[in-house]
Amino acid sequence: MTGGGDCPGLNAVIRAVTQSLILQAGVRVTGIEQGFLGLIEGRFRPLELADVTHILGDGGTVLGAHNAANPFDWHGEDVSAQALANARALGLDALVVVGGDGTMRIAHRFDQLGLPVVGVPKTIDNDLLHTDRTFGFDSAVAVVSEALQRLQTTARSHQRVMILETMGRYAGWIALHGGLAAGADILLIPEVPFSPHIVAEACTHCVARQGYALICIAEGAHAATGKQIVRAHLPHSPDPLRLGGVGEWLCQQLEGTLTSEVRSTQLGHIQRGGPPTPFDAVLATLFGWHAAQLVLQGQFGRMVVLRGQACASVPLVDVAQGIRTVGLNDPALLAARDLGICLGN
Amino acid sequence: MTGGGDCPGLNAVIRAVTQSLILQAGVRVTGIEQGFLGLIEGRFRPLELADVTHILGDGGTVLGAHNAANPFDWHGEDVSAQALANARALGLDALVVVGGDGTMRIAHRFDQLGLPVVGVPKTIDNDLLHTDRTFGFDSAVAVVSEALQRLQTTARSHQRVMILETMGRYAGWIALHGGLAAGADILLIPEVPFSPHIVAEACTHCVARQGYALICIAEGAHAATGKQIVRAHLPHSPDPLRLGGVGEWLCQQLEGTLTSEVRSTQLGHIQRGGPPTPFDAVLATLFGWHAAQLVLQGQFGRMVVLRGQACASVPLVDVAQGIRTVGLNDPALLAARDLGICLGN
Amino acid sequence: MTGGGDCPGLNAVIRAVTQSLILQAGVRVTGIEQGFLGLIEGRFRPLELADVTHILGDGGTVLGAHNAANPFDWHGEDVSAQALANARALGLDALVVVGGDGTMRIAHRFDQLGLPVVGVPKTIDNDLLHTDRTFGFDSAVAVVSEALQRLQTTARSHQRVMILETMGRYAGWIALHGGLAAGADILLIPEVPFSPHIVAEACTHCVARQGYALICIAEGAHAATGKQIVRAHLPHSPDPLRLGGVGEWLCQQLEGTLTSEVRSTQLGHIQRGGPPTPFDAVLATLFGWHAAQLVLQGQFGRMVVLRGQACASVPLVDVAQGIRTVGLNDPALLAARDLGICLGN
Amino acid sequence: MTGGGDCPGLNAVIRAVTQSLILQAGVRVTGIEQGFLGLIEGRFRPLELADVTHILGDGGTVLGAHNAANPFDWHGEDVSAQALANARALGLDALVVVGGDGTMRIAHRFDQLGLPVVGVPKTIDNDLLHTDRTFGFDSAVAVVSEALQRLQTTARSHQRVMILETMGRYAGWIALHGGLAAGADILLIPEVPFSPHIVAEACTHCVARQGYALICIAEGAHAATGKQIVRAHLPHSPDPLRLGGVGEWLCQQLEGTLTSEVRSTQLGHIQRGGPPTPFDAVLATLFGWHAAQLVLQGQFGRMVVLRGQACASVPLVDVAQGIRTVGLNDPALLAARDLGICLGN
Repeated sequence: MTGGGDCPGLNAVIRAVTQSLILQAGVRVTGIEQGFLGLIEGRFRPLELADVTHILGDGGTVLGAHNAANPFDWHGEDVSAQALANARALGLDALVVVGGDGTMRIAHRFDQLGLPVVGVPKTIDNDLLHTDRTFGFDSAVAVVSEALQRLQTTARSHQRVMILETMGRYAGWIALHGGLAAGADILLIPEVPFSPHIVAEACTHCVARQGYALICIAEGAHAATGKQIVRAHLPHSPDPLRLGGVGEWLCQQLEGTLTSEVRSTQLGHIQRGGPPTPFDAVLATLFGWHAAQLVLQGQFGRMVVLRGQACASVPLVDVAQGIRTVGLNDPALLAARDLGICLGN
Repeated sequence: MTGGGDCPGLNAVIRAVTQSLILQAGVRVTGIEQGFLGLIEGRFRPLELADVTHILGDGGTVLGAHNAANPFDWHGEDVSAQALANARALGLDALVVVGGDGTMRIAHRFDQLGLPVVGVPKTIDNDLLHTDRTFGFDSAVAVVSEALQRLQTTARSHQRVMILETMGRYAGWIALHGGLAAGADILLIPEVPFSPHIVAEACTHCVARQGYALICIAEGAHAATGKQIVRAHLPHSPDPLRLGGVGEWLCQQLEGTLTSEVRSTQLGHIQRGGPPTPFDAVLATLFGWHAAQLVLQGQFGRMVVLRGQACASVPLVDVAQGIRTVGLNDPALLAARDLGICLGN
Repeated sequence: MTGGGDCPGLNAVIRAVTQSLILQAGVRVTGIEQGFLGLIEGRFRPLELADVTHILGDGGTVLGAHNAANPFDWHGEDVSAQALANARALGLDALVVVGGDGTMRIAHRFDQLGLPVVGVPKTIDNDLLHTDRTFGFDSAVAVVSEALQRLQTTARSHQRVMILETMGRYAGWIALHGGLAAGADILLIPEVPFSPHIVAEACTHCVARQGYALICIAEGAHAATGKQIVRAHLPHSPDPLRLGGVGEWLCQQLEGTLTSEVRSTQLGHIQRGGPPTPFDAVLATLFGWHAAQLVLQGQFGRMVVLRGQACASVPLVDVAQGIRTVGLNDPALLAARDLGICLGN
Repeated sequence: MTGGGDCPGLNAVIRAVTQSLILQAGVRVTGIEQGFLGLIEGRFRPLELADVTHILGDGGTVLGAHNAANPFDWHGEDVSAQALANARALGLDALVVVGGDGTMRIAHRFDQLGLPVVGVPKTIDNDLLHTDRTFGFDSAVAVVSEALQRLQTTARSHQRVMILETMGRYAGWIALHGGLAAGADILLIPEVPFSPHIVAEACTHCVARQGYALICIAEGAHAATGKQIVRAHLPHSPDPLRLGGVGEWLCQQLEGTLTSEVRSTQLGHIQRGGPPTPFDAVLATLFGWHAAQLVLQGQFGRMVVLRGQACASVPLVDVAQGIRTVGLNDPALLAARDLGICLGN
């Protein structure tokens, strides 16, 4: 089952789980459609080798995804018993769940209710605890990096300030790595509240030195004015300023200050679609394979993680304790600062 | 000189002009910086072979561009005499101008004032009269096509309606070719006013058949309600609806009608940045080479065009008579309709 | 039916033919597997809308291809009657054949035997008569161009001479356009016999000026020594020199002459695999759509062609009269020469 | 100084070292051209901020590389004293050397002779001891993966066996990760001697199941016949079989055994050219930044390494003790086996 938002590499996990279980142990594999919604509604589909032979490089998930289906709170009702009954009717011996922290919390509850679960971490944002990396992140960084490189050539030709707003509501990994990879001049992430004044000064400095400035800002970045943090422009706020996101908001701020033209672009859903990068295809394959090993060894209630170059696992219950944000001693953040990239503070 | 907005392939033109003139005839070549602004302010730079050897694949323009510098109306003043004086002081025998219809109009006036001009057509939008293609268009189509393919995988996984808004204020070439290349289900262009009701019905049909719908809409597309054309959402209109563009406007319309989730993305400046596709690198090279031949043959007051697979030229004065929009008998438009793609009408 | 070698865009043709015929006229569409082999062996497969919905961007052909199956000479036997009988048993009213000149010759004979045929031109080499372009060519040029750009950076760092051998046994279109797009210094094609001595001199000149040289050579290029053309290294010659192709042969010649290191790479089958470029996806879609129109209009015995930006058709019998090679007045060839690119002569 | 063969990411290291040293400490930075050759011949070039602003995404190295320049054995002579004298005349306080194990051995000797050295590991092959990853590897894997995906579509259409030979003389990392990322059916690496008989059987099995087979083989892979390892076809062997490499050798073996057509492609130098992937751009930036920190902290005689997600360093002397090959318990290798990929044994 693949839960939560889609992410490049999901099909690689499905393929690796299916191939390992069938070829190593002759296990019968069944796909559950559209995340927990499929468990609630009993929508299952057998997965044979032929079903997964050619899906490795396809974006999205052949099983479908559903962002919000929670059997413990399904339109206000607890339908977990029905979901469990469906699983039992199907004869499920184990459930491999691919998803983010929300999905893992639900998976953990099913595991405690007697449905043996193995989790596979999935988030484009790379912000899950206990794993060095999640698949999908490298693919999102590649999309951001290419977009920044395209904006750089037009910024340079027109001597403009260009802003790219990326995903990353609570953690700035995508903006940080995408911006580092593409040579952004200014990097703004949720973990480091920025001063519009300092950003404007950095723009002026960049324009003077190289004729343009390139800003990469995570959607969750926010301004700090004095002691007060300005969150009015945060996504989902009722403030009309939010229209267009924080990138557009910053654009308007800078246009009032700078003599240069300023333009803003919001990448949006393009960051989560499309095929996995080779890095993500390999990582997702390793995660799926390792999940199958845990199933075969009867190690349930655990989630696969990456530790250095090796796969390991942690208790599902540990995953839900928070998210992994960019630490102030993160080497990429320190490197950005020391290379002269403005962090807005 | 490169005028107007930047566009992939400008450097290929600069390289081809420079190499041809130097190697064929030992001509001294000078670059004028930032379009007509450089002519007004006398900002010139010699172009040697070494300056252009490695710029073929670089996005943007090494000479810089300026969208709005018109010597005949420079902040309300006519400074064309000053521009001409600068050209004469430099000893310019001929001026090669790369630009769109606005730039060509200005170029034509200078040509009439005695500064021999050869024009090279440039517009991402592919909407210049008299030429089969302009460079930059294929590159923009490639960006749109890749974005649509990314959106398609996430639309399919989540059973969503996804909207991509592309460039194309008056002509729908980019949306039409990008959408055809990537298999969009619904194509909305300025030349074919759309009915939101018909679009909604097509979405419902697509979702029923394949689980999702993919819409590609040009920024200048507009809705027709009864006999009245709704232009309230057009770019640069003061209407608050315009925030986010027509894609966002359509998104809101559909969200009120459909049960599916609807999401909108606006590609923005990414479409004009970055390196040219190989097609555009070759086309821009041919255009630059042909411009140099016109200079060497003393054929001035003309603009290079593509006719089938061959280069030709037309009088500059002919270019400014309008733009080339998508005809209702255009083969790509007819093919789209016959393949079952909804055109909104 | 898709005949001959595979080519990016075949699936786009299959999709366009199928969608147009079904949606415009409710026609029943059947795929014939593996080119004429499927007609000989009666291997057919119904094609419904759902079969072609998602194949537009896939490389290869879902119907399979077969290089050498000729019903008029099948292992020395004429089995065309059997093929015709299979077609009649199936109730075929018309046959759409996608292929190169060899396939079109066979198709023409079937058309004369009473099986109504519409042809769609297909060759990566772009060397079919009567059509301005064939799909697959732009995709092959893109692969060549990217490979050359990769080789350029390593040639430049190591001050080497780098050779890339591309497809193109009789026509040099791929090498010419790929080389122009990527800034090759030396372009060698079958239409212009080269002198190894002149190539060596050009290498020396390039190394002196820019530190390296980049050569793009078509597999069918050949050396001319005095009045005698050296073809010993041509593909399929029994000469041991051919091992590695003409690129490797030239590498050995240059290594004996130059002080620079020389390295050769042969791209091989990578040039014909993978997804179509957006340009090719659109062109193949237009070709498939136009073929369906010819079927619906009962215009048989004809092959679809591109003329400028429009689709047209020519009698099948006209196609087989030769191939379209690079003319000595071809604008791309002239531009290459005038830009200082060495053509080996 | 960048030594040894070139590799995507070298310019990112140069940029990060230069920017960090100048911006953090106002250090004067000098580039040494063409590896140790530049030290021998005293060819230096100042590196200012403006020199490195736009090189991050460029392939190759702006300083040039030289594969074989060893000051301790330069055409049979020890010219290290001259190299040291050049370094002293320049006033070098520290030398940052980017290179592979050979370069690090030389660097270590200079460090012992009193020239303070910091090393940065560089090898496309990912086979340096003590570091989890080297930059350039991800880029090479991406090239291999794309080539395999292209070959897959043509193999599938023509029902062929396709072989891709990759770099990797002693270690199979590139073939293993590239093959896993692209879904190769058979993976042959130097660490696992293969039986041509088993490979042929796997091909037959794949063709029966899916119609084709895709083989990824490292250039250093070798066959084991009974107890004797067949190395006749290894690169640099005098055996004529080596022409075309082990991929071509295997192609000939399989052609004699299988009924399917078999084709072989050798990627060659394309694997080391071109821009770094975003992953490599970030990793190379981190390595360059960390090297600058070691210089500023006076920690010499050490090489930067990656440990998990963090940068660390090891003594230069430790690096030269061998190479890091694919262990038989490597997770990627185990996963490949368990997913049903044939390893040839």
